[in-house]
Amino acid sequence: MPRFSSKRQFTIEWGHCDPAGIVFNARFFEFFDWGTWMLFEAALGVKPHELGAAYGIVGIPLVDSGARFIVPARFGDVVEQTTRVSEFRRSSFDVEHQLFVGGTLAVEGKETRVWAARDPADPAKIKSQAIPPEVTARFDASAG
Amino acid sequence: MPRFSSKRQFTIEWGHCDPAGIVFNARFFEFFDWGTWMLFEAALGVKPHELGAAYGIVGIPLVDSGARFIVPARFGDVVEQTTRVSEFRRSSFDVEHQLFVGGTLAVEGKETRVWAARDPADPAKIKSQAIPPEVTARFDASAG
Amino acid sequence: MPRFSSKRQFTIEWGHCDPAGIVFNARFFEFFDWGTWMLFEAALGVKPHELGAAYGIVGIPLVDSGARFIVPARFGDVVEQTTRVSEFRRSSFDVEHQLFVGGTLAVEGKETRVWAARDPADPAKIKSQAIPPEVTARFDASAG
Amino acid sequence: MPRFSSKRQFTIEWGHCDPAGIVFNARFFEFFDWGTWMLFEAALGVKPHELGAAYGIVGIPLVDSGARFIVPARFGDVVEQTTRVSEFRRSSFDVEHQLFVGGTLAVEGKETRVWAARDPADPAKIKSQAIPPEVTARFDASAG
Repeated sequence: MPRFSSKRQFTIEWGHCDPAGIVFNARFFEFFDWGTWMLFEAALGVKPHELGAAYGIVGIPLVDSGARFIVPARFGDVVEQTTRVSEFRRSSFDVEHQLFVGGTLAVEGKETRVWAARDPADPAKIKSQAIPPEVTARFDASAG
Repeated sequence: MPRFSSKRQFTIEWGHCDPAGIVFNARFFEFFDWGTWMLFEAALGVKPHELGAAYGIVGIPLVDSGARFIVPARFGDVVEQTTRVSEFRRSSFDVEHQLFVGGTLAVEGKETRVWAARDPADPAKIKSQAIPPEVTARFDASAG
Repeated sequence: MPRFSSKRQFTIEWGHCDPAGIVFNARFFEFFDWGTWMLFEAALGVKPHELGAAYGIVGIPLVDSGARFIVPARFGDVVEQTTRVSEFRRSSFDVEHQLFVGGTLAVEGKETRVWAARDPADPAKIKSQAIPPEVTARFDASAG
Repeated sequence: MPRFSSKRQFTIEWGHCDPAGIVFNARFFEFFDWGTWMLFEAALGVKPHELGAAYGIVGIPLVDSGARFIVPARFGDVVEQTTRVSEFRRSSFDVEHQLFVGGTLAVEGKETRVWAARDPADPAKIKSQAIPPEVTARFDASAG
């Protein structure tokens, strides 16, 4: 079953770009990060800054990420970003991002994140936790 | 009496620069911020991340800042940054930054910051507090 | 006569914020920068990345900027940014930004920028130039 | 034969960190980028901003990158970054970064970059080019 995805559109700003006139690579990881928060808001109906409180977690920290830069994005380009969870596991999940410029796939990103809560044995530490079924269900149920 | 100042040297990175090939203006405010932390470490002998605990404050939040951009700084430029407190008041202070490239003053910055602690009446809030005399003394004593 | 202003709305992202949970000060200067590009697009009907070509300039480089931080902005806050030119001079102009969170003025910014073209005597250099009357007229004409 | 590697040391700044008090993930890609420029300077004896002119290229654009986040890095942490080329191919190469905090591997990064010049058939485009043997030789020769 195809999973729920969210889309957002934004414009490449002057400050995103480097002396080659194209987006500096680190900026794409900001775009991915925000895309993931937006996806969770769209799927769960919970504002990003309320996600932790809503589910008793400290957050969804990133443990792995990567990007493939196919076509440069430039100042003024309008970017269409599509974000989806490609796989839920017990306590971690993968997020995929596709950024299109003028209908062409420009950048692909992948993040692996963990559903993380305070460790009951040591609240100074965080520990991955089972993702609640009602969370994963919202991603399936929203698919269309 | 001239106040203590600290100096640091760094190189302008590719990712600091914009499509005009010069440092994107917002980056200078990162340079100022870090310059202030470095100054306090040099004057007080306290690591930046231990400043709060050492003095019972939450930090030294910024309330005002400004910059004058005189000469552009470019990828590969070696910057000499000089930072000093220009004035201590009861609970706030002004910090001045001068950034030189090849001996020429390229950028000047000014920050106004507050010595801030949790409000005893409402720990969710922060409140400016009198700067301890032993703090200001360290800035005078270090002057040379 | 009140000048034309433009408004934009955006949400504070996780990556905009620092360990105090509030927007890191340098980010506001990114918000100001983009606000200025948006204002010029709204007033002139020219896309930011086409501004230089449309008017035979290299850009509108910043020579002075400043900010007053009144109320912190936090992760998830919705920001309403209003940007206007407060004064046009022969070859430079001032831009004012006001950022509201929940109807409260949170941050004020001011930029001084120059209308800059290549120096005919030395194309490696840039030089301020008289702002065309048709440009300033668009800012007046759009006022309401 | 082990390849030449370069090391640099830096401190995690306040502005690098997010509300969780740890380095915001996108910043690591800035650290990787700068590590690569530093490696090339160390191996080739050419300043980063002179690399293009020295070898007739437009740069070494990134086509793929990734990171593994093992242990969080925090404000004030001293980072030891080791960077090496793990493989040279005809016109592309892989760079590996290891970031240690207190002797523990905190983050691993990998970049794939291209040796890129203007396309002789269309100078508006860039095209990968064979990496000169004298370049790869400098990376071997410097190994110890």
